[in-house]
Amino acid sequence: MSRRLAVALVHHPVLDAKGQVVTTAITNLDIHDLARSARTYGATDYFIVHPITAQRDLVTRICEHWRDGSSGRRIPDRKVALALVRTVVSLEEAVGALGGRAAVEVWVTAARALGPSVALHEARVRLEGEGRPVLLVFGTGWGLSAEVVEGADAILEPIEAKAATGYNHLSVRAACAIVLDRLRGAGS
Amino acid sequence: MSRRLAVALVHHPVLDAKGQVVTTAITNLDIHDLARSARTYGATDYFIVHPITAQRDLVTRICEHWRDGSSGRRIPDRKVALALVRTVVSLEEAVGALGGRAAVEVWVTAARALGPSVALHEARVRLEGEGRPVLLVFGTGWGLSAEVVEGADAILEPIEAKAATGYNHLSVRAACAIVLDRLRGAGS
Repeated sequence: MSRRLAVALVHHPVLDAKGQVVTTAITNLDIHDLARSARTYGATDYFIVHPITAQRDLVTRICEHWRDGSSGRRIPDRKVALALVRTVVSLEEAVGALGGRAAVEVWVTAARALGPSVALHEARVRLEGEGRPVLLVFGTGWGLSAEVVEGADAILEPIEAKAATGYNHLSVRAACAIVLDRLRGAGS
Repeated sequence: MSRRLAVALVHHPVLDAKGQVVTTAITNLDIHDLARSARTYGATDYFIVHPITAQRDLVTRICEHWRDGSSGRRIPDRKVALALVRTVVSLEEAVGALGGRAAVEVWVTAARALGPSVALHEARVRLEGEGRPVLLVFGTGWGLSAEVVEGADAILEPIEAKAATGYNHLSVRAACAIVLDRLRGAGS
């Protein structure tokens, strides 16, 4: 019996290149790729966090197109993944949908070390046990704001290659896939 | 001392939903995401295989924009990854660039079992040893044609979650990231 796992992709509050808090735009392939990865690794929900109504509506229209439209008939597998998508105004709304702050463990991810972090193999063990649902949070732009990181229950270690390559600028699509595989893949 | 590792993304010959051999279009984020993952895990080359000149030229123009243009000034890290990109007409040209067929091991990836496959943890051990350069091949569309698979030296096992989720329709961007992490990540 494994714990419930949900994924969130945050478009606000996130950082820009200069460290300012900004709101990023929806990227179409973020919707698809994270939904497909989430579904592959048995996550129950994929929250797309955006404060702007028109951007949330865009996500909804894209998902409808793949559920009821011509693309849904062309690639039926896709709707199974996109069925996990839930648009929310804020990370708090995502936490609320899972039962409220006291009922959820919030785990944030980061490309750089932001303080004491939990190793991914340790997080994997925690996830396999009993416990509250886990909300696994990814940031767009240059990463989650300090406010989001400080409010989390755990910071997961940054993904790295075994040999030092001096580079770890993965896309959020790649990072989410790798973290899910480290947490729930058949390889470990 | 680890073996040289290169990545190839094939747009022809690949399969469509009905199993016909087709040529797919270049997807902008495939250029970026696979380049960033390749660079993060120390691959030396990222071959984008496309038989159509205008599509290869598109890749070249995008890479130039991130090397010399305004985007290169905005996100300098990106050019370090995109420097790995090499456009080629065919997979044979990629193999030739690495020294020719006898000098290269071609490992293909697939989302479904296509015959006897090499486990990713075994492939990781092989890659850590001495030996010929490895060309790790990913397909777009519905996957690599039988011709490419049959010409390979090894078929890597499909990526799966540990618990059966009944779904493994990952994007090629996610699949490439996960395979590179299984082969060269700090987690195993």
